[in-house]
Amino acid sequence: MRIALLGGTGNIGEGLALRWAQDTDHEIVIGSRNAEKGMTRARDYRNRLSEHGVEADLSGTSNTGAAAGSRVVVTSVPPAYAADTIEAVRDDLADKAIVVSPAVGMVRDETGFHYDAPEAGSIAETVAAATPDGVPVVSAFQNLAAGALTDLSNELNLDVVISGDDAEARNVLKKLAEEINGLRALDAGALANSAEIESITPLLINLAMYNDGMHDLGIQFR
Amino acid sequence: MRIALLGGTGNIGEGLALRWAQDTDHEIVIGSRNAEKGMTRARDYRNRLSEHGVEADLSGTSNTGAAAGSRVVVTSVPPAYAADTIEAVRDDLADKAIVVSPAVGMVRDETGFHYDAPEAGSIAETVAAATPDGVPVVSAFQNLAAGALTDLSNELNLDVVISGDDAEARNVLKKLAEEINGLRALDAGALANSAEIESITPLLINLAMYNDGMHDLGIQFR
Repeated sequence: MRIALLGGTGNIGEGLALRWAQDTDHEIVIGSRNAEKGMTRARDYRNRLSEHGVEADLSGTSNTGAAAGSRVVVTSVPPAYAADTIEAVRDDLADKAIVVSPAVGMVRDETGFHYDAPEAGSIAETVAAATPDGVPVVSAFQNLAAGALTDLSNELNLDVVISGDDAEARNVLKKLAEEINGLRALDAGALANSAEIESITPLLINLAMYNDGMHDLGIQFR
Repeated sequence: MRIALLGGTGNIGEGLALRWAQDTDHEIVIGSRNAEKGMTRARDYRNRLSEHGVEADLSGTSNTGAAAGSRVVVTSVPPAYAADTIEAVRDDLADKAIVVSPAVGMVRDETGFHYDAPEAGSIAETVAAATPDGVPVVSAFQNLAAGALTDLSNELNLDVVISGDDAEARNVLKKLAEEINGLRALDAGALANSAEIESITPLLINLAMYNDGMHDLGIQFR
């Protein structure tokens, strides 16, 4: 399966790219608004994977080039750019493409980080509004810390919560998430349930701030 | 320490009462708007604890009678009654009393349960607005399922997230939460961070609805 990480040059995009490249045989394509930057970062990821003995099927290009032909298209960009990023590639989306939204809007004040709900209710719903009709949007991966993923020696033991209005697309993402060693994917139903998932992320940062020895936190349900 | 569970005749109040009675030597007082009902429920709880070999220091009375002399006063009532409940006992609060808010506002539609943020930002902040100046309010226990607590044979292995503007009060609650076997308490800082904690609760219900074999879910951070 071809997986595009739009804006995959940093943060959660980097983490997912490295883990999928390490743990699966999928074709990983790093997209960037600047194709040159996408290629440079892909080379950097391949080198890091190779230090871990992984020969990765991982390349870099423009966001439109990455989206073209990909079954799964992840908008791994800051929340303010999520809708624009998907709009910029809407004509390049493959038949049966699934768009995945991992972004979270947050604001910070003197008391910590807070969830900043967009007009649509959640970033995932904002992305869905910008996505062509008939292309399913799945919300996932918000509660994984980039640092926990990019440190490839770190053993994950975490849950990922999946929501979206298309049950088949949710299942594709559930499987894809669980192909990463140490992740369990849970189904949260409709995309309207994404806000409660997104809003856990600022709490994870606050907990890391207020509790000694905790960092790059994730969650487990039990 | 004397702990009052206002509206402790059902749900999370019942769960906390049984667990504190079982695992600690604190004096537990069940409050109800109807003192008779408080007493009846307390007798019922004592009988259930006694079946588990626990001789509990647990009694029942009115909400005002429960609040009087208590170091910790938990507003374990439905969210719509939380502010009124604390207003009804404000003249009975002891010096150094700490008010604890475990309630969560939710709405349900065809897609599942959703967090229903009150005007003040969270139920805990709503309770704080109704609490006399100088009495600290702590947000805690929202993400524990009543069913997981009331089944005394169920081994807990869960996190409780504590927030509040008074660091000393947060510490009292952190300790009190961890006196229940199997609970770990984490500090989330200011009361303004309560919304993100409260909003996990509808997600827990949605996950139990959409994932086979999951029920009475709680959370662990790692």
